[in-house]
Amino acid sequence: MQVRYPSDSLTTLTDVVLPGETNPLNNLFGGELLARMDRAASISARRHSRRICVTASVNHVAFNKAIPLGSVVTVESKVSRAFNTSMEIYIDVWIEDRESGNKTKANEAIYTFVAVDETGNPIPVPQIEPQTELEKQRFDAALRRKQLSLVLAGKMKPHDATELKALFV
Amino acid sequence: MQVRYPSDSLTTLTDVVLPGETNPLNNLFGGELLARMDRAASISARRHSRRICVTASVNHVAFNKAIPLGSVVTVESKVSRAFNTSMEIYIDVWIEDRESGNKTKANEAIYTFVAVDETGNPIPVPQIEPQTELEKQRFDAALRRKQLSLVLAGKMKPHDATELKALFV
Amino acid sequence: MQVRYPSDSLTTLTDVVLPGETNPLNNLFGGELLARMDRAASISARRHSRRICVTASVNHVAFNKAIPLGSVVTVESKVSRAFNTSMEIYIDVWIEDRESGNKTKANEAIYTFVAVDETGNPIPVPQIEPQTELEKQRFDAALRRKQLSLVLAGKMKPHDATELKALFV
Amino acid sequence: MQVRYPSDSLTTLTDVVLPGETNPLNNLFGGELLARMDRAASISARRHSRRICVTASVNHVAFNKAIPLGSVVTVESKVSRAFNTSMEIYIDVWIEDRESGNKTKANEAIYTFVAVDETGNPIPVPQIEPQTELEKQRFDAALRRKQLSLVLAGKMKPHDATELKALFV
Amino acid sequence: MQVRYPSDSLTTLTDVVLPGETNPLNNLFGGELLARMDRAASISARRHSRRICVTASVNHVAFNKAIPLGSVVTVESKVSRAFNTSMEIYIDVWIEDRESGNKTKANEAIYTFVAVDETGNPIPVPQIEPQTELEKQRFDAALRRKQLSLVLAGKMKPHDATELKALFV
Amino acid sequence: MQVRYPSDSLTTLTDVVLPGETNPLNNLFGGELLARMDRAASISARRHSRRICVTASVNHVAFNKAIPLGSVVTVESKVSRAFNTSMEIYIDVWIEDRESGNKTKANEAIYTFVAVDETGNPIPVPQIEPQTELEKQRFDAALRRKQLSLVLAGKMKPHDATELKALFV
Repeated sequence: MQVRYPSDSLTTLTDVVLPGETNPLNNLFGGELLARMDRAASISARRHSRRICVTASVNHVAFNKAIPLGSVVTVESKVSRAFNTSMEIYIDVWIEDRESGNKTKANEAIYTFVAVDETGNPIPVPQIEPQTELEKQRFDAALRRKQLSLVLAGKMKPHDATELKALFV
Repeated sequence: MQVRYPSDSLTTLTDVVLPGETNPLNNLFGGELLARMDRAASISARRHSRRICVTASVNHVAFNKAIPLGSVVTVESKVSRAFNTSMEIYIDVWIEDRESGNKTKANEAIYTFVAVDETGNPIPVPQIEPQTELEKQRFDAALRRKQLSLVLAGKMKPHDATELKALFV
Repeated sequence: MQVRYPSDSLTTLTDVVLPGETNPLNNLFGGELLARMDRAASISARRHSRRICVTASVNHVAFNKAIPLGSVVTVESKVSRAFNTSMEIYIDVWIEDRESGNKTKANEAIYTFVAVDETGNPIPVPQIEPQTELEKQRFDAALRRKQLSLVLAGKMKPHDATELKALFV
Repeated sequence: MQVRYPSDSLTTLTDVVLPGETNPLNNLFGGELLARMDRAASISARRHSRRICVTASVNHVAFNKAIPLGSVVTVESKVSRAFNTSMEIYIDVWIEDRESGNKTKANEAIYTFVAVDETGNPIPVPQIEPQTELEKQRFDAALRRKQLSLVLAGKMKPHDATELKALFV
Repeated sequence: MQVRYPSDSLTTLTDVVLPGETNPLNNLFGGELLARMDRAASISARRHSRRICVTASVNHVAFNKAIPLGSVVTVESKVSRAFNTSMEIYIDVWIEDRESGNKTKANEAIYTFVAVDETGNPIPVPQIEPQTELEKQRFDAALRRKQLSLVLAGKMKPHDATELKALFV
Repeated sequence: MQVRYPSDSLTTLTDVVLPGETNPLNNLFGGELLARMDRAASISARRHSRRICVTASVNHVAFNKAIPLGSVVTVESKVSRAFNTSMEIYIDVWIEDRESGNKTKANEAIYTFVAVDETGNPIPVPQIEPQTELEKQRFDAALRRKQLSLVLAGKMKPHDATELKALFV
C-alpha cells in the first residue's frame, strides 16, 4: 500500500455563521462546530484511506474563542498519523477579520476515524509520512495520545505505554 | 455557596433518530450526536451552577456502537466534578431494543463547561459531593483528566501532576 | 398480553431553545414544540406497545405560556390510556428558572398513536393500569375524549357516548 | 372594524417532501407536518387580523393518511370563525397523484390563534362572514368546539354550553 | 400528447421567515430563498409534465429587495415555455404589508427543469399554450433566453440564434 | 483603493452530502447546492471588498451532473470581475471519486454581489487584475454578461452593448 502525506488529506471547509447556527449568546453553537469538524475530518480520513470511514472518537476539542454570528470560519483538517486501521485527524479552526483580512486561531480538535469495508469491518489504511515541522510534532504526539486512550480505556498497562510514560518519569 | 450533588444536574434527553439526522450508512450522524450531547451537557452545567455556561472543551467521546435510523436514543448527563469556575460533565448514551425494551450503552463522552457572568467572565461554581460508587470513581478520575489536559496544553509540568503520575510510576 | 403502567412509558426530552428554533418574537416556534412533543410521544407509544407506532391525531395542545429563547424545556410524555390498537399520550411541558431552579408548567398536549405491524396494519396493544391519582383522572377523561372524537367524526351517535353525555345531562 | 370573509385569509403552502423531512417509514414526519400547518395558519390569522398573531392551541389534527417521500403536499388554511380576540383556523391538507394530477384529502386540522399588540396583550379582531356552504358549516361548528374547549378547561359549565349541549339532549 | 396551459402548473408556496432562515442582517438568507424557489419550480415542472423532473439550470434570479425577518413571502411559479424535454419556469416572489395587506414584488427568477423517465433519461413533455398577455411575453422571451444559453455554452452559433440576434441588429 | 487578484478571494467549501440534504432521487437537493454556493460566494465577495456584501443576482447555474448521496463536494469561488459597487463571482463545483481520488467538474455558477455600508447603501469596491489565462477569459466574459443583464432588464439599449453586440454582428 502506497505511503501518503498529510497534505494529501488536507480538507478546507470555509463557511459563514448564520443566525440558525448560533447559541443564545449569538456565537456559533458548539454542537454545530463539532458537526462541521466531523464532516471535514471524515473527508480527510476518506482521502487518506480511499475507504468508507466512521468516527471512532473525539479525543480533544478546545473551545478557546467564541465565534460570533456573521464570522467567516475555516475548518482545516489533515490526517496527522495513521495506525493499522485507524487515523488521527488534526483540525485547526480559523476566523478572519473582515476589515484587515487577518486570520486568528479559534479552536483545535483531534478526532479518530476507522476505515471499514463494505460489511463494516475495519480494514488497513496506508501509512503516512509527515513532512513539515508541525506535521512531525503532531505525528509524534499522536502516538502518546493513542497510548493514553488505550491506558484510560484499560486496554494497555501504563507500564507498556513507553512514549507516554517518558513524560512522567 | 451551597454544595450540590451529581443528581441535581442529571439531564435526560430521549429522542428518536430520523432520516434527516443520519449519515450515508443510515446510522445517526456523528455530528448530530455531538450536538445532542452538547445540548444536554450545557443543561447539566447550568443546573449545577445556576449560571450561563459555555463549552470549554470536549475531552473524550468514544463512538463504540453505531446507532441505526429509527433508534430511541437516551443522552444522560451529570456534572462529575466541579473545579473553581469549570465543571466536568460525564455523558452516557443508551439505545433500547424495541421488542424487549432492554437498554444498551452506545457511547460515553466527557465535556467541560465554564460558568460565566453577564460580561462573559468566568465565575466560581458550587462544589460537588459524589454519592454513588460510580459518581465517586468519576469524581476521582476527573482530577487525573484535568491534570492531563493541563500537561498536554503545557500549563502544568508532568512532575506536578501528582494523581496522574501515580498511574505510571 | 401483559398489563403495563403509565410509568413504563414515561419519556423525558429535556433540551434548550436555540435561535434557529424561535419565531420572530424570540420565543420557541410553535411548530418546533409540536415536533418535539411528537417525537417524545412516539417514544412513549413505542415503549408501551413494543411496536412501530404512527401518529393518529393531535387532540389538544394548549400554548399557555410563551417559551423564550435560551430556556431549558422539558417535554414529559406518558401513555394515559390504551384502547384496542390505539393509545392516548398525555404530554406535560415544563420550563425552569435558571437562578432558582424552579419548574413551571408551560403547556399540555394530548396525542393519539396507533401501533402497526410490518405491513402497516393496526395491531392490539397491552392494556394499562393507572396508579397515581393524576394517572387515574387522565385515564377516566381519556374515555370521554375518545367518545368525543368519535361523535365529532360522525362515527358514534351522541346518544351512545354514555360517559360524555353524563357531563351535559 | 371591517367585516372580513374566510377567503380573505386563504393561505396556500404547496411544497414537496424531501428525505430530510421524513420519518423512519419514509413518510412525512408528523412533527414537520404540524410545523407546516402552524406556519400556514399563522399567516391566515395575520391576514384576517392584520396583527401579530400567536398560536393559542391546536384543537384537532387527524392524520388519516400517510404522506410518502416525494409527495407534493398542499396545506390550505382559512379563518373559520373569529371570536373576540381569537380566531379558529381550519386547515385542509391535500396530496396529488403525479400521473393523473388528481388531489386527495390527506389530513384536516384546527388551530386557534390570538391577535396581540406590541406588548403581547390580546386585541380585538374583525368579525367574519362565512359565504360558501362549507364555510357556514365550519363557522357553526366552531362555536361548539369553542364551548367544548371551555368546558374541558373548566372555564364554562356544561349547562351553559347551549350549542354543544344540544348535541346530547 | 395533450397541450397544457401555464395556469395548469401554477404553484403557490406562501410561508413566513423565521429566525433560523435569516442572514446576519436579519433578512431572508439568499440560499433559503433559492431553495424555496427550487421546490416550487420543481412542482410546476411536475404538474406540467406529470413526470419526475430535475433542475437543469437557474438562468436568472434578481434579488431586488431584501425580505425582512417575520415577512410573509409568496413564491409563485408557472411553466412559461416547454421545449422538447425541458421546461422554463418563471417565478415571482411577493411580500405583503401586514397592516394594509398590500403585496409588493420582491424578486423574479427563471429556472429550467428536465423531465426524466425511471432510468433518468430525458423524455418529451407536453407543449404549452400561453393565454394571458404576460404569459405570451414570457413565452416569447423564453426562446431568446434558450438561444442565449446555447450560444453562451458554445452549443449554437450566434448566427443561428435568429430571435436573439434580432435584438442587436 | 488597492487592486486585488482573483486568488485573494478564493474560497473553498469542501463538504459531504448527508441524507438530510438529498432529493427523493438520492442526489444532492438543488436548493441545498444553491445555498452552499451562495455561502461560498458571499465569502469571496467579502474577501475582495472587506465589506458587508449582499446577493444581487444569480446569473447562471448549470446543473450538469447529479451529485449522489455520500459524495465529497468542493465548491470553489473567486471574484471574476469587479465593477463599481458590484462583483461577479465565478463558482466551480467538483466531486471526487473515492477510490481513485480523481476530481470531476459537476457544476458551474455565476453570482453577483454588491458591497454595502452600515446603512445598506452600495459602496465602491477595489478593482481586480486577472492573472491566469482562465481568470482573463472569465474577466472578459463578465463584461458581456453584465451588458446582457442590463439589456434584458431594459436598462441598456442593445445598440450600446458594444462587447455583447460583437458576438452577433
